[in-house]
Amino acid sequence: EKPDEEKFKPTISPYLKVQFWNAYSEGIQSADGARTQERLASYFRRGRAGLKGNLLPEISYNLMVSFDYLAKDENLSTKGTANAGTFSIWSFYFTWKLNSENDWLNITGGYFLPHLSRESTNSPWSVSSLDKAETSCYLRQFVTGKTNGISPGINIGGMGKIGTPTLLYNLSCVNRQDKTSIQTESWSPVVLGHFMLNFGDDEFQKYKYTFSNNVLKKQKSATLGVGFSKQGETDAFESSSTIGADATIYLGGLKMDGEYYRLSRKNESKYNAECAMGRVGYNIFLKKNWILEPVAMYQVFKGDDNYSDASFFDGSDKITDLGVNLISKPKNIKVNLHYIFHDGDGTKNHYISDEETPGNYAVLGIQFTI
Amino acid sequence: EKPDEEKFKPTISPYLKVQFWNAYSEGIQSADGARTQERLASYFRRGRAGLKGNLLPEISYNLMVSFDYLAKDENLSTKGTANAGTFSIWSFYFTWKLNSENDWLNITGGYFLPHLSRESTNSPWSVSSLDKAETSCYLRQFVTGKTNGISPGINIGGMGKIGTPTLLYNLSCVNRQDKTSIQTESWSPVVLGHFMLNFGDDEFQKYKYTFSNNVLKKQKSATLGVGFSKQGETDAFESSSTIGADATIYLGGLKMDGEYYRLSRKNESKYNAECAMGRVGYNIFLKKNWILEPVAMYQVFKGDDNYSDASFFDGSDKITDLGVNLISKPKNIKVNLHYIFHDGDGTKNHYISDEETPGNYAVLGIQFTI
Amino acid sequence: EKPDEEKFKPTISPYLKVQFWNAYSEGIQSADGARTQERLASYFRRGRAGLKGNLLPEISYNLMVSFDYLAKDENLSTKGTANAGTFSIWSFYFTWKLNSENDWLNITGGYFLPHLSRESTNSPWSVSSLDKAETSCYLRQFVTGKTNGISPGINIGGMGKIGTPTLLYNLSCVNRQDKTSIQTESWSPVVLGHFMLNFGDDEFQKYKYTFSNNVLKKQKSATLGVGFSKQGETDAFESSSTIGADATIYLGGLKMDGEYYRLSRKNESKYNAECAMGRVGYNIFLKKNWILEPVAMYQVFKGDDNYSDASFFDGSDKITDLGVNLISKPKNIKVNLHYIFHDGDGTKNHYISDEETPGNYAVLGIQFTI
Repeated sequence: EKPDEEKFKPTISPYLKVQFWNAYSEGIQSADGARTQERLASYFRRGRAGLKGNLLPEISYNLMVSFDYLAKDENLSTKGTANAGTFSIWSFYFTWKLNSENDWLNITGGYFLPHLSRESTNSPWSVSSLDKAETSCYLRQFVTGKTNGISPGINIGGMGKIGTPTLLYNLSCVNRQDKTSIQTESWSPVVLGHFMLNFGDDEFQKYKYTFSNNVLKKQKSATLGVGFSKQGETDAFESSSTIGADATIYLGGLKMDGEYYRLSRKNESKYNAECAMGRVGYNIFLKKNWILEPVAMYQVFKGDDNYSDASFFDGSDKITDLGVNLISKPKNIKVNLHYIFHDGDGTKNHYISDEETPGNYAVLGIQFTI
Repeated sequence: EKPDEEKFKPTISPYLKVQFWNAYSEGIQSADGARTQERLASYFRRGRAGLKGNLLPEISYNLMVSFDYLAKDENLSTKGTANAGTFSIWSFYFTWKLNSENDWLNITGGYFLPHLSRESTNSPWSVSSLDKAETSCYLRQFVTGKTNGISPGINIGGMGKIGTPTLLYNLSCVNRQDKTSIQTESWSPVVLGHFMLNFGDDEFQKYKYTFSNNVLKKQKSATLGVGFSKQGETDAFESSSTIGADATIYLGGLKMDGEYYRLSRKNESKYNAECAMGRVGYNIFLKKNWILEPVAMYQVFKGDDNYSDASFFDGSDKITDLGVNLISKPKNIKVNLHYIFHDGDGTKNHYISDEETPGNYAVLGIQFTI
Repeated sequence: EKPDEEKFKPTISPYLKVQFWNAYSEGIQSADGARTQERLASYFRRGRAGLKGNLLPEISYNLMVSFDYLAKDENLSTKGTANAGTFSIWSFYFTWKLNSENDWLNITGGYFLPHLSRESTNSPWSVSSLDKAETSCYLRQFVTGKTNGISPGINIGGMGKIGTPTLLYNLSCVNRQDKTSIQTESWSPVVLGHFMLNFGDDEFQKYKYTFSNNVLKKQKSATLGVGFSKQGETDAFESSSTIGADATIYLGGLKMDGEYYRLSRKNESKYNAECAMGRVGYNIFLKKNWILEPVAMYQVFKGDDNYSDASFFDGSDKITDLGVNLISKPKNIKVNLHYIFHDGDGTKNHYISDEETPGNYAVLGIQFTI
């Protein structure tokens, strides 16, 4: 037996991230117009814990569990059903950086969120709005079968300079997973990707699987992206595809971002839907590294009537968010106060669900990341 | 961008606590009097793991998951249903200590056990009886809707000298969570609190969210407490309240504690129930820091007949516990041997459940905390 | 109060182990002969995480959770049902080494896999075949009621020299746990054990609860084992027992192992079944501590027709595995490529389940342990 070569000692570190929401909301309104009593309730919007580290210097991994909506009151108007304490695997993937000298080629395998649009892979811990745009959830659900989009498969991605701008790309092949399709007899893989060009100041320092929605410093930059997805026949449809574009622009303290994606599906008839989102925030730099960020967002989902044939949603779902964030990057703390106007129509979508429509709400949130 | 200020590095530590029970029990007796065969079976009465630490020096947190009753035989007479391996969030809270110079003001937010009585927040790892008094479970269930009492909300608490004695207080506002109430259309918050005065030697060194039931040293002290809760209208009742008192007394090696709480509810009629508990133990200090503690406990729940209108229990549930504990504080080990006499009557309560009554049992337990 | 004696500081370390499979498989075939479309899908065959360490120098523990089959496609022909993210306690036990000078006596308590045969307690991270022999799952299910065999109870085990050879023994008393038996009114404990003699070079360095199937070095040794189990009356049968033998032989790079176990049960009639497995691999030592191991395995389960009276399986389940492993022990990585021929007949067994039979499949697997 040969002597062991010098070994890299694998690293494994626990982490914890949490959004504790104190929500004041109108009640839920049922189909007959009756509305449950308004209320003030505390719960965890997001609870995440996990283990991350490196197996080898070039192979990193991240196992995340979630206990979102822990202790939520079911008659609050905010998103999500009550969670009495269950938690489950959110995502688990490992990334192999193939070249130590540049960032052009990284292979990710596992159970992960594929890159459908910029907002779909913006970190929920960094978004300026109260929550990630619901439009990215529609997009994920359309492509992967799940609102959170987490799918099993392989991703190839990287970044590097091509002349002056920086290119970021991600290309995935994943398996659809919604209840209908994971049991699909006719099977097709989902192929999808997202490409961004970053002009001006750098928005990204190195290849990472998720993006930040706020660099928390003054800079001038524009990052333009395009994304797409394609899938062939399954038991539920003949073919399905999405395409769209997104942009994130920093002008000193001002930050503007938005995206527009088009969802198309062919079954017996053709189905189209669209997801659009715009958000603007302004970073005000206070003493002791605190940042105050007033923000406004508008987002809309619209879908064709033949939702049943397309196995998706119809009508519209519109969210307007006005709020302010107080952020300390060194202290890993964000406090935010937002008011959400929620409106929509149709037969079946995230606003109209089970013949109940949620009311408007205000949230005072506290976010910790450890 | 300004240079980062000197940062406190957040701490995150895993922990593990376990009670492994080897139980010899009479079987379960069904309504027709038939009794399943007596048996000897091993299982985990309590399994808890978690992450705790500090986000900042003044902000601590504790995330606990439970896998209680792991591998329990359903026909054992001990408490709890079989658990084939599931685990879930037990509690998750963070505490902000507002003043570094004294302990008077601590704000706790999250999903936690509110202070209803002394026994309700005595640590299950420190109680002298085989288990925490079941009466505190009745009390918790009455107030919060759950036997374990863990609820989402906010708590304000603290401790300090007021003259010679030490005052400890905790005051919470939480959301009821039982299956009926979390979907309640008429909503009211639960307000509750607990106040203690510690005379003589100190029982508590600093403000902590849970209490020890055995200081494991000789001292002379008396800690007297009062607790209350109040809630207005929900779909299940017009109003609900509890009030009671408790005491913990050390006289050298002798320790005596007990509590009496009264539960009242108004719906179509008035409903009253009572929870009473008394416990006495004697710490015998052996070599090498081992302590031998013989102990006896009696507890009783009694409820009015109109349990259905009150959405609670009737009849009586009586537990007598005779046992002995062998404790090594430095080694984090407790070995205990107890015999439980369990008796009761009525239509629906923790003793009479699903028309089956459990028999008596003996337990040889081993407890580790890491 | 006496001053604390010098304390051993308990240790607690997280760990993570994973098998990521990329499977290409024929579809599932239903009773009418229709077969779902062939497919290529990625998922986690095994996902395990846990905490292990020592409470005291002589008391170790291991808590393991599993999220096996995470994101599996239900129409893949490989073993296991889809897992959308749930995870649960796999095992949790602690071992007390009674004598620091030798390894003859170790007591294990908790929720663990009892020693039924060598393959049943070979580590799944070390087996040369694509997966552990399914025959050991039949054996476990027969004895403990569960395919994974994890049961609550107590085990006594140890190892030491008796003359030239080394003896390893394990003897357990556990509680059956399948859905039928954990609610059994007539109760009997399960007593079982496994004994091995290791001749020639040492296969084991010290007493451990699980075994490695590949020492990853050249040596000459033969380890011969016998195992048994016995249980008396339950609601499902009058008595149940198993007996068998196993062998693991190293001849330089060549490794051969196999086992034969006989399963017997008495209810209204007598029932017999048998589990047999043979496996051969060859370790080729490459540069930089990589090992290439071509391997072949054949295994078969056969059961009598009266499966219903015996509350077990009938027919046959046959698996042939041809593959190659690439292993780096220092890097904790295994890459394996195997093709599985799966065949069988009968009314009810792991091959014939719910009137669907799985097809053959190829797997490219990657294994990490951290």
